[in-house]
Amino acid sequence: MRQYLLPPGYQGESSLVLEGKESQYLTKVLRLKVGQQILGRDAKGKRYVLKLTDIARHSCTLSCTVAEDQDPVQSTDELPSYQGPYPNLILLQCLCKGKKEEQIVRQATEIGVHTIALVSSRYCVTDLSDKKESALSSRFDRLEAQIKEAIQQSGSPVPTQLERKVIPLSELPTWWNGRGLGLFFHQSSRPHQQETLASLVRTLPFQTPIAVLIGPEGGFSDEECLFLEDHGFTAVLLKTNILRSETAGIYALSALQVLMTESHH
Amino acid sequence: MRQYLLPPGYQGESSLVLEGKESQYLTKVLRLKVGQQILGRDAKGKRYVLKLTDIARHSCTLSCTVAEDQDPVQSTDELPSYQGPYPNLILLQCLCKGKKEEQIVRQATEIGVHTIALVSSRYCVTDLSDKKESALSSRFDRLEAQIKEAIQQSGSPVPTQLERKVIPLSELPTWWNGRGLGLFFHQSSRPHQQETLASLVRTLPFQTPIAVLIGPEGGFSDEECLFLEDHGFTAVLLKTNILRSETAGIYALSALQVLMTESHH
Repeated sequence: MRQYLLPPGYQGESSLVLEGKESQYLTKVLRLKVGQQILGRDAKGKRYVLKLTDIARHSCTLSCTVAEDQDPVQSTDELPSYQGPYPNLILLQCLCKGKKEEQIVRQATEIGVHTIALVSSRYCVTDLSDKKESALSSRFDRLEAQIKEAIQQSGSPVPTQLERKVIPLSELPTWWNGRGLGLFFHQSSRPHQQETLASLVRTLPFQTPIAVLIGPEGGFSDEECLFLEDHGFTAVLLKTNILRSETAGIYALSALQVLMTESHH
Repeated sequence: MRQYLLPPGYQGESSLVLEGKESQYLTKVLRLKVGQQILGRDAKGKRYVLKLTDIARHSCTLSCTVAEDQDPVQSTDELPSYQGPYPNLILLQCLCKGKKEEQIVRQATEIGVHTIALVSSRYCVTDLSDKKESALSSRFDRLEAQIKEAIQQSGSPVPTQLERKVIPLSELPTWWNGRGLGLFFHQSSRPHQQETLASLVRTLPFQTPIAVLIGPEGGFSDEECLFLEDHGFTAVLLKTNILRSETAGIYALSALQVLMTESHH
């Protein structure tokens, strides 16, 4: 089911006036009529029943009431059957070209990833290190727009967060701080036996954060693999072909979500 | 590892002259030098060691020898560790816009799907039924170009086939002919309990063909769901959000591939 993401400043007010693009989205794109409802979510994921009470030329007004857990929102489209829980997936995506990055972020959000961060590594073709602050900022803005659109369209209950900085691979262990299972995907053999996804998560408690680090087109160097392994990340060999970045991420995330939600809980 | 797909007419000759685009791909895109090797595959998936023996202005010459099963081809890039087996996955994709369709076909080929067919259903926004034969034909040509590129780039040992016709949903059971497990994905509840992917494949023999039918943006109508269920297809509920077509296919295929290759064999 579609849902509407409330503006960041929304604090639970019982009435809300939307202007410009936001008003247009509800009245022109979703074609909501006065009296109709849609599910809303605030920045923390809290659910509201939003009822359109007035449409003006460049604005519209909503009445907002907190939705009870099982409150059936009489929406204009169908409810999905699955309401969670969602495993705590974190996508660490090595930099790639802008359009691919947007596709990756969009798809990861759709399936309900909690956090997305961009990582720079040795073989990244894209280098943002000498970009101006403003160029970086608008790159993150574009990615956040993709996230917002994907949450609204997919009805995801997960408020996906984007880390608004590029993390150098060397600083990744400090950023990650061992908060759960750290995985990286490498399609060439490591010297030791590599574990499969299924065996790694078989006995993992459901809420354990799982980081999925996806390399750039050129993969990781041997030094980078050793560095990651020395800092608690596990190399996973996917039993498939060499995948491009934009396929590898969604492949690993989809498989992990299914393994976590279906296989053992 | 990259590989080169030999022309459809190749019959095992020991020497092969390539011209135009094909020659350019090896000498300009892959930058293969005289004396260097690359893995080749013919239309049936048989492997050859291809050695570049001559570069002329608009052509190049290869010597071709059949590769033994474990023959290490001294290629210019790394070998992937996983060499199969691959589960027999068939993607039945309801029509969508051309660019999305190309992305879906590309990604499905990358992960090693055996067959891809396009299906028309009630809520398809794209309608090809009144297109001229030539327009349809060039649409299939574009998809086959994506398949070829994806096989070459991903090193996939699976010779992915495209069905060069659009199958109306009503004719799908006849086309499929019960040759394995037929699944369709539907994010709203069916009246009965829906099974999960993991439970459906837990005891399935590895080589059983698995059809993955992905609906259009609008999903399937109730009548279509009943029709499919009456004809041996099983409705699967993915434990995730409402996914767009281009995400749903890769999600289901990735999960199935991991479940089949890792979980129970």
